[in-house]
Amino acid sequence: MSPLLAAAGGPLGEILLSLVVILLAAKVGGELSVRAGLPTVLGELVMGILLGNLALTGWHGLEFLKHQPVLAVLAEIGVILLLFEVGVESTVPQMLRVGPVALLVAVVGVVVPTGLGLVVAKLFFPNESFYAHLFIGTVLCATSVGITARVLKEIRKSDSAEAKIIVGAAVIDDILGMILLATVTGMILAAGRGSTLSVVGVAWIAGKAVLFLVGAIVVGLWLAPRMYAVATRLRSGGWLLPLSLAFCFALSFLAELAGLAALVGAFTAGLILEDVQFRDLATKEEYELHDLLHPVIGFFLPIFFVLMGLRVDARAFAQTEILLFAGILTAVAIVGKHACGVVVWGGRADRWAVGLGMIPRGEVGLVFAGVGTTLVLGNRAVVTPAVFSACVIMVVLTTFVTPPLLKWRFGRLESR
Amino acid sequence: MSPLLAAAGGPLGEILLSLVVILLAAKVGGELSVRAGLPTVLGELVMGILLGNLALTGWHGLEFLKHQPVLAVLAEIGVILLLFEVGVESTVPQMLRVGPVALLVAVVGVVVPTGLGLVVAKLFFPNESFYAHLFIGTVLCATSVGITARVLKEIRKSDSAEAKIIVGAAVIDDILGMILLATVTGMILAAGRGSTLSVVGVAWIAGKAVLFLVGAIVVGLWLAPRMYAVATRLRSGGWLLPLSLAFCFALSFLAELAGLAALVGAFTAGLILEDVQFRDLATKEEYELHDLLHPVIGFFLPIFFVLMGLRVDARAFAQTEILLFAGILTAVAIVGKHACGVVVWGGRADRWAVGLGMIPRGEVGLVFAGVGTTLVLGNRAVVTPAVFSACVIMVVLTTFVTPPLLKWRFGRLESR
Repeated sequence: MSPLLAAAGGPLGEILLSLVVILLAAKVGGELSVRAGLPTVLGELVMGILLGNLALTGWHGLEFLKHQPVLAVLAEIGVILLLFEVGVESTVPQMLRVGPVALLVAVVGVVVPTGLGLVVAKLFFPNESFYAHLFIGTVLCATSVGITARVLKEIRKSDSAEAKIIVGAAVIDDILGMILLATVTGMILAAGRGSTLSVVGVAWIAGKAVLFLVGAIVVGLWLAPRMYAVATRLRSGGWLLPLSLAFCFALSFLAELAGLAALVGAFTAGLILEDVQFRDLATKEEYELHDLLHPVIGFFLPIFFVLMGLRVDARAFAQTEILLFAGILTAVAIVGKHACGVVVWGGRADRWAVGLGMIPRGEVGLVFAGVGTTLVLGNRAVVTPAVFSACVIMVVLTTFVTPPLLKWRFGRLESR
Repeated sequence: MSPLLAAAGGPLGEILLSLVVILLAAKVGGELSVRAGLPTVLGELVMGILLGNLALTGWHGLEFLKHQPVLAVLAEIGVILLLFEVGVESTVPQMLRVGPVALLVAVVGVVVPTGLGLVVAKLFFPNESFYAHLFIGTVLCATSVGITARVLKEIRKSDSAEAKIIVGAAVIDDILGMILLATVTGMILAAGRGSTLSVVGVAWIAGKAVLFLVGAIVVGLWLAPRMYAVATRLRSGGWLLPLSLAFCFALSFLAELAGLAALVGAFTAGLILEDVQFRDLATKEEYELHDLLHPVIGFFLPIFFVLMGLRVDARAFAQTEILLFAGILTAVAIVGKHACGVVVWGGRADRWAVGLGMIPRGEVGLVFAGVGTTLVLGNRAVVTPAVFSACVIMVVLTTFVTPPLLKWRFGRLESR
């Protein structure tokens, strides 16, 4: 501990200082991103990488940030809230309405990058277990539609046929990604307990994930409107946020209990909740759920992004093998998602534009990679620090290239 | 750990379950309070006491809540945000404008209850140190004007001469309370290090507290408008909340560094910040600081209240000595604050109404008592579990009696 922190008398002082540093670093990173025309998450991540590698200059004053256990929990709460919000933005009816084209795009966009990622990981790290390879593939399957949606809005293409396919596919993608994450996590946990996994065993874990999702959705769709209806009739105000958060945390807890990742539960909770269920309560309390969630997420989420950046060892950038791996992983991530475009038929939508729109991994890719660093198999993290650094590079690059590529493609389409 | 939690795989599951239980318990407690016509904080506290004493029924399923270290940190962040908000509601110019009557009321309202509390503590626990006695006195000095303000608003007396004196006195009260808390905490920390405290030593600690307050206010009043002006000129949005929180946490950290309580820093930060400084930024971002703080505090603060309730050992209610101590402490707390009324001169305001309005201790009394449980002197907490339970009873009773008494007194004044 630095002498400064020792003087501040232990953990509370340490956490307060961490929060000041992280809140300001995240906002400064965001500002730099905006000025460079990039998504803010990139700036937050890069600030984290800078802060985390200050020790390379010989100054170790902020090293404590990496090992602050409470900060790690706050970051986990941040991710749970993020996945909850991602889920809230999609609804079950919307999911069921997704067209066959978007469905096919989503399936291809999960299968191809995951398969390619697995193969690349196997080539580079032949001594790691199959699970480690599969997990790296899983990291590649996530689509972060937020980045694409913002670009499409900016160039006024939110209503295009391409946008509709991309957004529909992204919803299904999130769900498939969650099932895949849950299955792979379950397999690794089972392998860690020494169970050998038969095909039946894997099918059971995948089945459990699907069952959890379907079961939670069925029970949740019954429960949620009733829960909000009761809250609307109560005399005390301010139920909207705590009730919704309790619902999110309860499903996250149940997901952990079922041996899935907490994120899967949080996402499912968000998927279940939709505006019509709490319309009356929101009207009564004169607050929208979005406006209430926004500051809470704004507090917790930057902690996650900065912490993810902190975990990147910049020395990895000097290792040819890691850089090469990161480069090929990025190429595979781009090519794999871009393959989605091939299955767009009918000719109304541009194949290239759809394929490009599916490329960014953004926060969801980071979240998956982060989960991998916490899974341990044979005393080794499934995602090692070096691989994690490569994943972050992949996330940064895929997020970085998408906006200009999308603008270029739509520009070409217009000039035809 | 319960088998349920063991299955949920460790700390994250435990924290998620805790949050669900606490969020719902706090809201249910609040609802019951509202139905009984009581301040919501009482319900949250009582729900905490119920949850914390479920073990008396033989069921230990929620015992883990008491020893969850992350939960304790979340509660501390909650209190820091609470004191920040209390501070934000007062401004420095408002403090300097407080009239001589309110000033005198505040001083009497700090000195008399603190002195009486010290004497009572000495009589009941002659073997405890002088510091423990003084700390119990300090717990009595806090006024929670929120309760009174709500009652006055309800009976449409917010503009009365009495209301103005009470609110003005409460602002000064908060500041004097903070200086007292800082001084007593500093004395106890110094005594814990084995320093014998001369009059000069005590004066130095008190001087440091005043110096911190004055220094932070002078620097802060210079810095805050400039800080917000810079943020207003930036291109990225969403600076209002993170910047304000970083300011709050930075001063809390500095207060800890100076050997004062983090709360003192948070309150000072709130005192410095005022609407005019961030008017432009709030207009640009289309959010008010209050609306952004409200959900964040709504997340953290119930954790504090429920946790304080959890720490109350209901078996203390069966010990005659503790009950007697709690009763006398409550009597002294009421009489001591009520003494404020005596110094109201001029005749425009009713002495009784002012005295009654100063009685509730509410959350601030709890916060002070909570700080005492974390201070250790000679291997013993300065506020022992039994004394803490008595303090909670005192807080509950003073908060409980004020609304009916105020309504009765104003009713009598009107019928004259």
